[in-house]
Amino acid sequence: MTNELLRADYVLTMDAHNTVIEDGAVWIKDGLIADVGPAHLLLPRHPQLPVRRLTDRLLMPGLVNTHCHSGMLRGTAEGLPVWEWLQRYIDPMHQVLLPAEARLSSMLCYSEALLSGTTTVVDMWRYMHGSAEAAAELGIRVVLVPYVAEHPDHDYFETLDGNEALINRWHGGANGRISVWVGLEHMFYARPQAFKRIADICKAHQVGFHTHSNESRFDVEETLRRHGIRPIQALEKFGLLEASNVLLAHCVWVDDQEIALMARRNIGVAHNPVSNMKLASGAAPVERMLAAGIAVGLGTDGEKENNNLDLFEEMKVSSLLAKFATLNAAALDAWSICRMATIDGARALGMDHLIGSLEVGKAADIIAVRVDTPRMTPLIAQGPLANLHHNLVHAVQGGDVAMTMVAGQVVVEDGQLRNAEVDVLITEVNEAAPQLFARRKSWLDTTGGAINEINR
Amino acid sequence: MTNELLRADYVLTMDAHNTVIEDGAVWIKDGLIADVGPAHLLLPRHPQLPVRRLTDRLLMPGLVNTHCHSGMLRGTAEGLPVWEWLQRYIDPMHQVLLPAEARLSSMLCYSEALLSGTTTVVDMWRYMHGSAEAAAELGIRVVLVPYVAEHPDHDYFETLDGNEALINRWHGGANGRISVWVGLEHMFYARPQAFKRIADICKAHQVGFHTHSNESRFDVEETLRRHGIRPIQALEKFGLLEASNVLLAHCVWVDDQEIALMARRNIGVAHNPVSNMKLASGAAPVERMLAAGIAVGLGTDGEKENNNLDLFEEMKVSSLLAKFATLNAAALDAWSICRMATIDGARALGMDHLIGSLEVGKAADIIAVRVDTPRMTPLIAQGPLANLHHNLVHAVQGGDVAMTMVAGQVVVEDGQLRNAEVDVLITEVNEAAPQLFARRKSWLDTTGGAINEINR
Repeated sequence: MTNELLRADYVLTMDAHNTVIEDGAVWIKDGLIADVGPAHLLLPRHPQLPVRRLTDRLLMPGLVNTHCHSGMLRGTAEGLPVWEWLQRYIDPMHQVLLPAEARLSSMLCYSEALLSGTTTVVDMWRYMHGSAEAAAELGIRVVLVPYVAEHPDHDYFETLDGNEALINRWHGGANGRISVWVGLEHMFYARPQAFKRIADICKAHQVGFHTHSNESRFDVEETLRRHGIRPIQALEKFGLLEASNVLLAHCVWVDDQEIALMARRNIGVAHNPVSNMKLASGAAPVERMLAAGIAVGLGTDGEKENNNLDLFEEMKVSSLLAKFATLNAAALDAWSICRMATIDGARALGMDHLIGSLEVGKAADIIAVRVDTPRMTPLIAQGPLANLHHNLVHAVQGGDVAMTMVAGQVVVEDGQLRNAEVDVLITEVNEAAPQLFARRKSWLDTTGGAINEINR
Repeated sequence: MTNELLRADYVLTMDAHNTVIEDGAVWIKDGLIADVGPAHLLLPRHPQLPVRRLTDRLLMPGLVNTHCHSGMLRGTAEGLPVWEWLQRYIDPMHQVLLPAEARLSSMLCYSEALLSGTTTVVDMWRYMHGSAEAAAELGIRVVLVPYVAEHPDHDYFETLDGNEALINRWHGGANGRISVWVGLEHMFYARPQAFKRIADICKAHQVGFHTHSNESRFDVEETLRRHGIRPIQALEKFGLLEASNVLLAHCVWVDDQEIALMARRNIGVAHNPVSNMKLASGAAPVERMLAAGIAVGLGTDGEKENNNLDLFEEMKVSSLLAKFATLNAAALDAWSICRMATIDGARALGMDHLIGSLEVGKAADIIAVRVDTPRMTPLIAQGPLANLHHNLVHAVQGGDVAMTMVAGQVVVEDGQLRNAEVDVLITEVNEAAPQLFARRKSWLDTTGGAINEINR
C-alpha cells in the first residue's frame, strides 16, 4: 500500500474552517490520510517518507457527484421537458438496453468522472453488476442504486429482487469502494405494496435509499392529484423516509413544510442545476434548504440531461442559477458551493466520516487541480481579496484536473486514465450506440411506444 | 505564407446550411481559406499540397467573443449587483491602473482566449496601445474599444482624443488583425456634447461604436428618469446609432419597441449570459431579438464578471439560461447557439465577410476541437440523431481545443501557446495584481472613494 507524502502549492482541506494551506502536504498511508499540514511541519515530522512534489497544483478532496445516471444517449434526446422526454426517449431505451451496453456506459461515465476530478459517484442505472465491475476496474468510489420499478407499466426496469441480489453481491466490495443502496426511479414507478419492501430491505441490509422527487411542477401536481398530499409528505406516508440514509434528487418544487420535514428526517438532497435548467424544471431553493440544515450536494444528473459530467461546471452553474433566480448577486456564496461539491455531498450520502475533506483518518480521495492556467490567475489564497474559492467555483473546469486519487491509488495522472484505455472505450461506445438506437426504433415502430399510467 | 491542406475527422463549416463534412479538408493559402470540402475530393484536386492530418479532431471556425474586458481582478470583486460593484471595485481600480498592468492584462486575457478556441475578441479596456501590442505579439484578431468617458466624474478613463489616436495608430494593424472602434463605457459616463463627436469620429474613420446598454433594471430606470425615454431610444436620440457598425453589450432589459428599433438600425448585440446571471442582471430576450433579425453574438464579459473567458461555456450557459428563463426546454436550439458563437457574432461586428465560417475567401481563423474525449462520446454527425452540435454546445469545454489558427498562423498547438510563455505571464500577473490592489486601497483610504453623478 501507498505510504508517501504529497506536497503541493496549495492544500484546500474543506475542514470545518475551509482551511487553505500554502505549500502544504498530505501523508497518505494504506489508502487513508494520516496527516495534513504545512510542508515545513510535515516533512521534518516524517523524514523517512518519500515526498511526491506536485508543482503548480492545488490538492483538494475529490468531488462527490450525488446524482448521476450512466448512459450513452448524450445529445440525442434534446429539447423536451422532463416527463415528455422520459416517455419519448428514455423509457424506450430502457426497453431495449442490454447488459453489455449498460456496463460500457458505466465505463464511459466513470472514466469521464475521474478525469474531471470526481472520486465518488451516486449512479442510478441498469444491470449494475456491470457497473460494479466497471467501478472496481477503474478505481472509482460509487454508490450503486438500481433504477427500480415495481409496476406493471414499467416492468422492463430493475426489480427489488435484483436490487437485493446486487446488495448481497457488491455492497462493501472493492475494498469498501462500492456501496449498494435501494433505488426507485420515482414514486410513480411503483405500487404502494412495494414501498414497504423498500423500507424493509434498507433496514435489513443497513443501506440507504435514493429516488427522484419534486423535480418538476408536474411531479407535485400529479402527486397531489393521486394522494392529496405533496411528494415529500407522500414519501413519508409510504415509509420511504425510513432508511438510515435517504437521498432525494432534485427537490426543485419543495415548499416550506416539505423543507422542514426533510430537515427533521435528515434527508440529503442532490441538487442538479444544469439538468434543472436544461430540462426547464426550475430552480431548487438551495439557500432555504441549507438554512434549514439540510445536507445539499451537487449532482450532474446523466450525460443525457447535462450533457457532461463535470462537477466544476455544476459548481459554477449552481452559483449562476442561485444568483439569477433570486436576482441577488450575493446568493449562494462560493464557500458554500465548495462545500456542496465535497463535504456536504459526502454528508448527504452519510459518508462524511469517510470522504469529503482532507482530514486525518479519512480515505485518501484527493485531486490535484492545475494552478498554472490563465483562468486560475491571479490566485490569492489568503486575506480579504482571497479568490481561491471563487476561482474554483467560477473559473476552473474539469479539464484542469491533473491527478485523481481514490483510496490512495492514483487513477488519473497527467490527465490520463491509469486503468483503462479511453480510446478503446470511445470506439466501443461509438459502435454500440447506433445499435442501441436501432433497437429502440424497432421497438417503437413495433409497439407504437409505451402507454403507461402517466400517459393515460 | 502557409499553403497546405488541413484534414480532420469532421469539418463544421457554419455556412448557411450548418454543413458538417465527415473526413473533411480545408485548403489554407496566404492566410485565407482557398477551398473546403470532403477530403476525397480536395486531396486529388490539390495533389501538390502538403496535408496536415489532424487525427481525432473537429475543425470549426474560431469563436468570436463579442464582449470582453481585459483585466486581472478575477475572483476579487464578488457578490454585488452591477452598479454597486462598479462603484466599489471597478471604478477605483481604473483610478490607479498603470499602462504596464493594462498591457499585461491583455496578454493574459488574449492568451486565455486563444487557448480556449476564441480567435476574435472585442476588448473594451484601457491604455490600449499595450493591448494592440499584445494582440500583434500573440497573433489573435481583436476589435479594440477603449473605455471612454467624457464626464468630470469619470475623468480617469480613456478620452475620445486618445481613442482617435489609437484609431490612427492601430486600425488595420497587424496585417488587418487589429481593428479599433470608438468606445464608451456607458451613456451615463459622457455628457451629451461628447455624443456628437463620437458619431463624427465613427464616420470620419469608418469605424464601429461599442457601448454597454440595458444591462440592469437600474440602467433603464435611470435613463427614463434622466431623459424620459428608454436607453435604446436615448442612444438613437443622441446620434449614437449612426456608426456603420454599432454593437451593444447586454441588452437584457429591452422592450419590443427597442428591439424593433435595434433591428431597423441594424444594431449588433453581445449577449453575456454568465455575466448577466452572476451579477444578477437578468435574462436577455435572445430568441425575440433573433426573431427580429438582430445579429446576436456571445460575449464572456471580463474575467472579473465571469470569471473565465471560455466561449464554449458561454454557449452552454446561453442554452441553460434561455430554457430556464422561459421554462421551455426547447428554447434557443443548439444550432442557433453555434451560429451565435461564430457567424452571428461575426455579423454583429460587421465582419461576416471575413470571419465566422469556413468558406472560401474568408480568413483562416480555425480551431481544432478534440473528439477523443468521453464528453464528446458518442458522436453522431448526420441523421435524425445527430448530436455534434449538441455536444459542442453542452458538453465540450475550452480545454478541449487542441489547435487554434488565426489568419493561417497556428497560435496554439497541442493546447500550448506558440507566441508567449504562459508560465512567465502567470508569474508576472501574480506579482502585479497585489500591487494594483494595494494602490487601489491607498486611493480609497485617501479619497473615501468616488462620489460621482450616479452615486449622488
